Amino acid sequence: MDSIFDAVNFRIKMGGADVAIAIAQDHATGEVLMVAFMNKEAFEKTVESGTMHYYSTSRRKIWHKGEESGHVQKVKEIRIDCDGDAILFKVEQNSAACHEGYYSCFFRKLDKGEWKFVGDRVFKPEDVY
Amino acid sequence: MDSIFDAVNFRIKMGGADVAIAIAQDHATGEVLMVAFMNKEAFEKTVESGTMHYYSTSRRKIWHKGEESGHVQKVKEIRIDCDGDAILFKVEQNSAACHEGYYSCFFRKLDKGEWKFVGDRVFKPEDVY
Repeated sequence: MDSIFDAVNFRIKMGGADVAIAIAQDHATGEVLMVAFMNKEAFEKTVESGTMHYYSTSRRKIWHKGEESGHVQKVKEIRIDCDGDAILFKVEQNSAACHEGYYSCFFRKLDKGEWKFVGDRVFKPEDVY
Repeated sequence: MDSIFDAVNFRIKMGGADVAIAIAQDHATGEVLMVAFMNKEAFEKTVESGTMHYYSTSRRKIWHKGEESGHVQKVKEIRIDCDGDAILFKVEQNSAACHEGYYSCFFRKLDKGEWKFVGDRVFKPEDVY
């Protein structure tokens, strides 16, 4: 099992840690939900528990997604890219991925030189946090 | 038009530049093709030209994807995430995204504790580079 971690290149130095890029994608629809970072420990916890754990580069600690909100991400598939510095997780998202209440964090789309809000709002942040 | 760049938070310091994460996703199938970085200039060139330009953190310069191989990525849609440090591009991929000849750079999948090659190989690298 140890060898799977050797393939990951935690080459990005941020928030006091060596991290790789972690992308969460809806396993059923292919919608990209969010992008964050993982250090080795966060990746290990994710593989072991089957739910997404990230490394917060601002709070400088491991963060179990959904711990506070209940909006956990259950891992269905894990892929790694050619140079090993990005990991793609196909997940089953409970409720919504974004802390602003949208299903995906990518709820703004460029349209004629402006960012337009196009995402589906699933919950009101004030009801959850 | 300038204001669209204000929404991007080039907060990652790598390879002598301030960069954001750039994800290329197949606009038709939703398959995630690759992840790399953009500095402000690379993002501007991408928006202006309609084809993907990245910032290479190892070569420390702007890189027009497909310039050498012809495997350009035509931009169909641009989205930005809630905190502005990741940009999602839905693209039309010519040939293949990965320099190793696979359609997507995420051609390895975790399967029973091992990374298994599952991607489609579109070309042989020695024929192209």
